[in-house]
Amino acid sequence: MLFDSGPISSHGIVRCPEDWQVTEPHGPGYSRIYHITGGGAIYRDAAGTHQLKPGHLYLFPENSAYQMRHNPADPLCCLYIHASLFPLVLHGMQELPVEPGHFLDHLLAAMADLIRSSDSLPLLQSLLTALIIWLSENIVLQQPRPEILQVLKYIQTNSRDTLTVSTLSQLVCWQKQYFIRQFRRETGITPHQYLLRYRLHQASLLLLQNIPVTEAARQSGFTDLKSFSKAFRTKYQIAPSRYPNYYRNIP
Amino acid sequence: MLFDSGPISSHGIVRCPEDWQVTEPHGPGYSRIYHITGGGAIYRDAAGTHQLKPGHLYLFPENSAYQMRHNPADPLCCLYIHASLFPLVLHGMQELPVEPGHFLDHLLAAMADLIRSSDSLPLLQSLLTALIIWLSENIVLQQPRPEILQVLKYIQTNSRDTLTVSTLSQLVCWQKQYFIRQFRRETGITPHQYLLRYRLHQASLLLLQNIPVTEAARQSGFTDLKSFSKAFRTKYQIAPSRYPNYYRNIP
Repeated sequence: MLFDSGPISSHGIVRCPEDWQVTEPHGPGYSRIYHITGGGAIYRDAAGTHQLKPGHLYLFPENSAYQMRHNPADPLCCLYIHASLFPLVLHGMQELPVEPGHFLDHLLAAMADLIRSSDSLPLLQSLLTALIIWLSENIVLQQPRPEILQVLKYIQTNSRDTLTVSTLSQLVCWQKQYFIRQFRRETGITPHQYLLRYRLHQASLLLLQNIPVTEAARQSGFTDLKSFSKAFRTKYQIAPSRYPNYYRNIP
Repeated sequence: MLFDSGPISSHGIVRCPEDWQVTEPHGPGYSRIYHITGGGAIYRDAAGTHQLKPGHLYLFPENSAYQMRHNPADPLCCLYIHASLFPLVLHGMQELPVEPGHFLDHLLAAMADLIRSSDSLPLLQSLLTALIIWLSENIVLQQPRPEILQVLKYIQTNSRDTLTVSTLSQLVCWQKQYFIRQFRRETGITPHQYLLRYRLHQASLLLLQNIPVTEAARQSGFTDLKSFSKAFRTKYQIAPSRYPNYYRNIP
C-alpha cells in the first residue's frame, strides 16, 4: 500500500470546555484533523484568519505556527484526531465540505460510531488510513517530490541511527545546500528540525505505552538523555516522565 | 497492526444475471463477502441449507465446499468482495445483520459509494482491513492458535522457497503427524493443500497485474511450469495465460 497514517496520538468526540484554545508557536509536529459538528472556531496563521464551520472536515498543518479559539457561548463540538500524515505533507490548513450521503460522510459516521462504542485504536487507525488515501486521491494531500519522499522514508526506517544532513543529502545525490533548500520547500522545515520532531514524536508514543524515559529516548535515536529531556520539554512543555499522565483527550 | 486483509481479487455491486450460481467443490481459496441489498439466494454446504436475506452481511468459507443459487425472478443484488482474510480462518458461513446507523452500516455505505464513484482499489483494501479488524474484534472471526498462526505467517513470508511439511512442523517443534492434524483442525485443509492454494492465489494476483506466466509461477514458488499449469487449471478451470481476460466482475 502506498500510504499509511502515522500512529494516532489522541482522538475523541467532544464539546470543548469554555477555556479551550490552541496555540502552536512552531507547529505541533502532527496534524490535527477535525470534523466539526457544532459551534465553531477562529483559526489564525501566517496567511490570515478563517472561520471554522460545522459540516466541514479540517486538516491543520504539522510544521507551521497557528492559533485557534472559540466562542464559549457557542463552543466547538467535533470529532478530532491527532496523527502524523506521513509521508504526506500539509503546508496550510485545508477545509473540505462533508456532503451528506457521500463517501466522506459515511466514513466519518463510521469513525464516530467506533469512538462512541468500542473505541478500538487499531480499527480507528485503519479508517484513518482510508481517510488519508481518499484525501491523497482527491488531491487535498500530495506526496512530496520523489527525492524528498525517499529521504522521509529513510528517516522513518533509520531514525534510531546517527543521521547527518550530509548522509541524507548523499542519499539522493544532491549538494548539501540544495538538499536543505528543497527539503524545506517540501516540508516547511529543515532536515535537522524534521529529524528532531520525528524522534520526539516517536518518543512521545513510546512514553504513552509506558516505556521508561531512558528506553524511549534510546529507541527514538537520542544518544544523550539530557538533550532529549531538554528538547522534549521545549516541544511538549512537560518533562518526559510526566508525559503519560499529561495525555488528555482534548482537541 | 495485528490484522491485514489479503489482496482483493474481485469486487463490485451487481444485480446477478439469471443464470448466476456458485459451485465450489473444494472451496475457492478466498472468502466471498456479500452485503445483500435485494433479492436473495440459497446457500448449501455440509451443514445444510440456508436462505440468504437482504440487509445482512455474509462471509463464505475459503476452504470448504459450498453451492449457491438464486431465484431468477428475484435475483441476488449485492456488494461483493473476494479476498483472503489472512491470517484469519473462517470455517463455516457467517451471517450478520447490518443494523441501520451502526458501524457496519456506515462502513458498507462508504464501500458502496467508493465502488460506485472512484473505485480505488487501495482505498477499498483499507476499508476491507477495517471490516476485518471489526469482525475479529466482534468475535465473528478468530485467529488460529498461536503455533498455526506462526506457520501461516512463515508460509506468507517464505512461499517462494522450497517448503516441506517437515520444515513447517519443526518450526513449532511438533511431531509431523500431530502438526498435520492440528493444522487441519484450524484451517480445514492440510499444510500441503494450504501451501498450494496460497501459491496459486499469489500467482493469480500476479497474472492480473499482467506478469508473464513463467514469471508469475516462479515468483509464487513453483519450480516446475508444467505442474503449475496443471494445478492452476484444476483450481481455476482455465489456463494461466488466459486468466487475466477471464477475470470478470461476478460475485
